[in-house]
Amino acid sequence: MEEVKLHGTWYSPYSWRVMWALRLKGIPYEFIEEDLSNKSDLLLELNPVHKKIPVLLHGGKSICESTVIMEYIEETWPCKPLLPCDSYERAVARFWLNFADVKLSIMWKMSKVGGDELQQVIKESLEILQTLEEHALREKKYFGGDKIDMVDLSFGGIAHVLEAIEYKIGTKLVEGHKFPRLLAWIHNFKSVPILSENLPNLKPPFKNPTPN
Amino acid sequence: MEEVKLHGTWYSPYSWRVMWALRLKGIPYEFIEEDLSNKSDLLLELNPVHKKIPVLLHGGKSICESTVIMEYIEETWPCKPLLPCDSYERAVARFWLNFADVKLSIMWKMSKVGGDELQQVIKESLEILQTLEEHALREKKYFGGDKIDMVDLSFGGIAHVLEAIEYKIGTKLVEGHKFPRLLAWIHNFKSVPILSENLPNLKPPFKNPTPN
Repeated sequence: MEEVKLHGTWYSPYSWRVMWALRLKGIPYEFIEEDLSNKSDLLLELNPVHKKIPVLLHGGKSICESTVIMEYIEETWPCKPLLPCDSYERAVARFWLNFADVKLSIMWKMSKVGGDELQQVIKESLEILQTLEEHALREKKYFGGDKIDMVDLSFGGIAHVLEAIEYKIGTKLVEGHKFPRLLAWIHNFKSVPILSENLPNLKPPFKNPTPN
Repeated sequence: MEEVKLHGTWYSPYSWRVMWALRLKGIPYEFIEEDLSNKSDLLLELNPVHKKIPVLLHGGKSICESTVIMEYIEETWPCKPLLPCDSYERAVARFWLNFADVKLSIMWKMSKVGGDELQQVIKESLEILQTLEEHALREKKYFGGDKIDMVDLSFGGIAHVLEAIEYKIGTKLVEGHKFPRLLAWIHNFKSVPILSENLPNLKPPFKNPTPN
């Protein structure tokens, strides 16, 4: 098999998406930790447009943007599929992948801003979580049903980071009576051992950097 | 064949993407014009999360978000493919689809803002166009080579709207000595008859609404 390398950072939910997809499919890979405060020449060469992690290197070719990488992984190693077989169901999954790509960056801002801006970002974040609760999760174990899929990986950062953000901003966002489905999903997602291995300790009080 | 309906507006490049994909594949469809200043109950029901056009209805099921819809069309009607066969090349195409989704909304702001904000948006728009010139287009007729593909459709709004925006803001953005590849691509894209039929008249001076 051609060599697989993942350039990322240990604290980025976007790196985790790729790492989780590779783990679920049982693809061996080498993880290369990037220092985002001092980006390597190699990273700039591999992703000259966005200059960001994660980047997947497969057989010497680079693939950038976590959702694009997950789609590539799905097509290259179709065993243990991470998208539904049916094209309509796949479109529904891609709708939520797109939603995650557009909206999660708003939520991550909560750990970076303060004052009025923080209040605005909290408001938007609650709307995002409410949309997931009402329209995406329904009465299922995972986003797509009984099996983890790419949409779960896409939102997986919420499961592992939200508690730390709530601790940092001093506000509980996901309360049981308002978000029963989301809380159940967070529990289900965190219960999959292969998805929790080697993640940073984000149990409050924490001292890890916030996601990037 | 199951009925295909496209809810959109005649002046939206996001509607055009879907319309172009259907036309290139020869799929008959009914176009339903939506009034965005007074959204129909049906639109709100079909796209309850974003409440936006375009929405494709196929056999009674709704698919939202133009890029998700193009992927659905590609999978449902694989004839005359709009994505490359090779998975790495498909990842490269999806990288640019993602780039278009993130960046084009910045460019469309040029027709909606003024003053310092306009200057900032012009600066960002020129960076976006420079990235396409340097990294995406190379010496090819279209983004993917000699054949129109989904990436061309994704950026097609530029070909048909930019001139009108330049006229409105009184600034020429794409000049030949700086953007030879982009200008050649705009010419090539606009030369495909099936992609220019029934588009609004955006030749300056124009009175059409700006894209939404």
